[in-house]
Amino acid sequence: MEVKDTDNVQETFEEEKGKDAERSRWYTDVVTGAELADYSPVKGCMVIRPYGYALWENLQRALDQMIKDTGHQNAYFPLFIPESFLNKEKQHVEGFAPECAIVTHGGGKKLDEPLVVRPTSETIINHMFAKWVQSWRDLPILINQWANVVRWEMRTRMFLRTTEFLWQEGHTAHATEEEAEKEARVALEMYRVLAEEWMALPVITGEKTEAERFAGAVRTYCIEAMMRDGKALQAGTSHFLGQNFAKAFDIQFQAPEGGLEHAWQTSWGVSTRLIGAIIMGHGDEKGLILPPKLAPIQVVIVPIYKKEEEKARVLERCRQIAAELKPTIRVFLDDRDTQTPGWKFNHWEQKGVPLRLNIGPRDVDSNVVEIARRDTGEKLRGVSQDGLAAELGKLLETIQKAIFERAVQFRKEHSVTIDNYDDFCAKLDEGNYFIEAHWCKSGQCEAQIKQDTKATIRVIPFDWKPQPGKCIRCGTASDTKVIFAKAY
Amino acid sequence: MEVKDTDNVQETFEEEKGKDAERSRWYTDVVTGAELADYSPVKGCMVIRPYGYALWENLQRALDQMIKDTGHQNAYFPLFIPESFLNKEKQHVEGFAPECAIVTHGGGKKLDEPLVVRPTSETIINHMFAKWVQSWRDLPILINQWANVVRWEMRTRMFLRTTEFLWQEGHTAHATEEEAEKEARVALEMYRVLAEEWMALPVITGEKTEAERFAGAVRTYCIEAMMRDGKALQAGTSHFLGQNFAKAFDIQFQAPEGGLEHAWQTSWGVSTRLIGAIIMGHGDEKGLILPPKLAPIQVVIVPIYKKEEEKARVLERCRQIAAELKPTIRVFLDDRDTQTPGWKFNHWEQKGVPLRLNIGPRDVDSNVVEIARRDTGEKLRGVSQDGLAAELGKLLETIQKAIFERAVQFRKEHSVTIDNYDDFCAKLDEGNYFIEAHWCKSGQCEAQIKQDTKATIRVIPFDWKPQPGKCIRCGTASDTKVIFAKAY
Repeated sequence: MEVKDTDNVQETFEEEKGKDAERSRWYTDVVTGAELADYSPVKGCMVIRPYGYALWENLQRALDQMIKDTGHQNAYFPLFIPESFLNKEKQHVEGFAPECAIVTHGGGKKLDEPLVVRPTSETIINHMFAKWVQSWRDLPILINQWANVVRWEMRTRMFLRTTEFLWQEGHTAHATEEEAEKEARVALEMYRVLAEEWMALPVITGEKTEAERFAGAVRTYCIEAMMRDGKALQAGTSHFLGQNFAKAFDIQFQAPEGGLEHAWQTSWGVSTRLIGAIIMGHGDEKGLILPPKLAPIQVVIVPIYKKEEEKARVLERCRQIAAELKPTIRVFLDDRDTQTPGWKFNHWEQKGVPLRLNIGPRDVDSNVVEIARRDTGEKLRGVSQDGLAAELGKLLETIQKAIFERAVQFRKEHSVTIDNYDDFCAKLDEGNYFIEAHWCKSGQCEAQIKQDTKATIRVIPFDWKPQPGKCIRCGTASDTKVIFAKAY
Repeated sequence: MEVKDTDNVQETFEEEKGKDAERSRWYTDVVTGAELADYSPVKGCMVIRPYGYALWENLQRALDQMIKDTGHQNAYFPLFIPESFLNKEKQHVEGFAPECAIVTHGGGKKLDEPLVVRPTSETIINHMFAKWVQSWRDLPILINQWANVVRWEMRTRMFLRTTEFLWQEGHTAHATEEEAEKEARVALEMYRVLAEEWMALPVITGEKTEAERFAGAVRTYCIEAMMRDGKALQAGTSHFLGQNFAKAFDIQFQAPEGGLEHAWQTSWGVSTRLIGAIIMGHGDEKGLILPPKLAPIQVVIVPIYKKEEEKARVLERCRQIAAELKPTIRVFLDDRDTQTPGWKFNHWEQKGVPLRLNIGPRDVDSNVVEIARRDTGEKLRGVSQDGLAAELGKLLETIQKAIFERAVQFRKEHSVTIDNYDDFCAKLDEGNYFIEAHWCKSGQCEAQIKQDTKATIRVIPFDWKPQPGKCIRCGTASDTKVIFAKAY
């Protein structure tokens, strides 16, 4: 049987034109060329290769620590959800039922009730919460789960939108509305820190409109990032669920003052999509540019020699240096003799390794190395081998800051304020921008703008005070300014 | 709708009698009472609660480090496997097809080809290996995956046998038979270290008989542990796959000397079943006894006071001590005033916390604490608060060794050598033992013994030299001694 794996992650080239199509091809080339992921024989699913998975592990480690430091505990709930559970919250089932994968047979028999492969775990987790919560003393419950989820997607793109993906989902229950609201913000703040301090991607935090809200939530908060083509990427969401699920699943507690009350809840998640954000938020024509704090390999050493007699002493010194760096830096010595140095330069540049050390016979003699920066292409020649670990450590910090600043600058250059619909449409025809504009809060205007321009309201930023203006489309008075953009 | 979650993990009480039934009830009480796991609304699936999951995370961390230190890399492959893939290796499909959960619908439509929820990932991983391997230079491939898998089980028991479980699965491909054989042993050695040095459970390493072999393997190696009821538990397996899957999935490489050859392979896995092994390998009538190196909480502090004026200064000192211990010890201060100290003693004993500090007003005045050991029940009174972290660190090491030694001793006392079939049957009627006996290598004898006694051949130990004897059942000359036991 001939299986063409490439058929199974359907890229959307055919409908894309010009720059978009070019960008899509670039993205796919980077994902496969940098060996982050590969096409799989299963429709819409990808294989995360070791280099991509190591990046995911580093993201996980950073976030998991924050999740634990803020008092949450990890747990694990079943992959399968009885179909009837999904039907308990009306908006939730409407949002997710069309995307579900259904198990109808198990152990050679047809099941009495089909099982849904979790698209998200609110329903099954809240069923358990109902069992665990009796009194206010049982609250809050602060749970997180690292898991795989499945959403049947028609158009997929590796990391950004796949049928199966890996994520974490936080689920919490509280005695008061205030506490749940605060929790939703705590979660969002973790995501902001993850994006800005680890991924080196500036994000705008704020609320989503009703049209973009999680199915079953009262309010959805998000972090929104700009990619290097000027498009927006929703990188993480946190939901204030009110009492919707508590009522559907009967999560009630004895209040301190007596009487039964429904719990107030939140849920929040980020996924392997973050890897897509790193690729598109920093990458350039040569490939990936990885933030040093998350890079699986922070420094790669490329030995350079021609004659056989050079090889031994160059390699020996490279091994010494690698051993010296190892305690503080994730270092890799590429000592393959099946590839040329030039090939290796391209290879590790495509893989986005922040720093490369070139070491040849003359460097060995002079006790120096040449350092190449991936982000700027800059080369530092004649850097002493003494104190190299400290020097590289500083450089890695510099790069972490530099690529963040570069992204801030890029977003600034691609953000505009517009108060006239013709200009608005013209600007979006011209290219991709974050457009700050007033909006009247009507879903109709929002939908019309999307139809006219393909731009959606990405976020109502938290830190914008109400200010008078007119809806960009209908001209109605509005105190709400929002960010419009085309999005992934 | 009323869902009784307890219906969904079907315990096997009804067929068990006497001690076995008692033991089963004890097991379930410990799992739920210690809050390791809970019944779920999904048939055969459990919810791993935070305390159980923290134990799993500690196991994962220890093993993951060993996996990486031996040169393996983590990756992630799709949850779903096309049904046709499973059919490619004859023995493999025969072994797994009856246990599979099948997805027939996705995104509201019937699928062209049903998808199997992975019961293990040999098929899909080997499909990818075929793509990645061209030359001997691409070998070895050393991959590991942490994932959930699903096997439709009729009789389930939390952690020991559930429809969905968490595990790691190593999959490797090599250029030579010798290298693959060596790899299978390297993996088994990691499992032995995990069991003995982390879980404090002595294990016997060796080979399984053909009847107990992994479906598709040439040889299956295992670590076999004795539980505290004298039954055996298979705690981990490593398989030398030969070229079976390489031939089925066409994993061929250009050999250094030219010509195409099929790769030699291994696979190996341990699962959340290890938590069941810890429960049953160490626990007593009071509940869990956790090995200190894996315990989510190593030391619990219980403040003891009666009067309100005592409370403040006892709690203050407890907080001080907790803060001092925190950098080196996983410590938890149980400062709830909704529970009595006596309740807390029982609670933390059931949860298997290795050490408890009791601190009352007089201890505060005298600058001492009382330490209670979970494994022996021993109490150390008047231990100085100065240098407490070092003292507790030493005690934790002592306990780690003590419970290992206790398990070694217990296994010794419950192991016998027998060379007569009547004695063999009588011994197994009397209780649970590891019986060392000769076996003629016939599957017929093996099956007959199982039918007569319920005992199976657990392992042909590596470290037993061939020695002459007669098959315990048929009397045929045999040089192979094996271990028989009833097993979980």
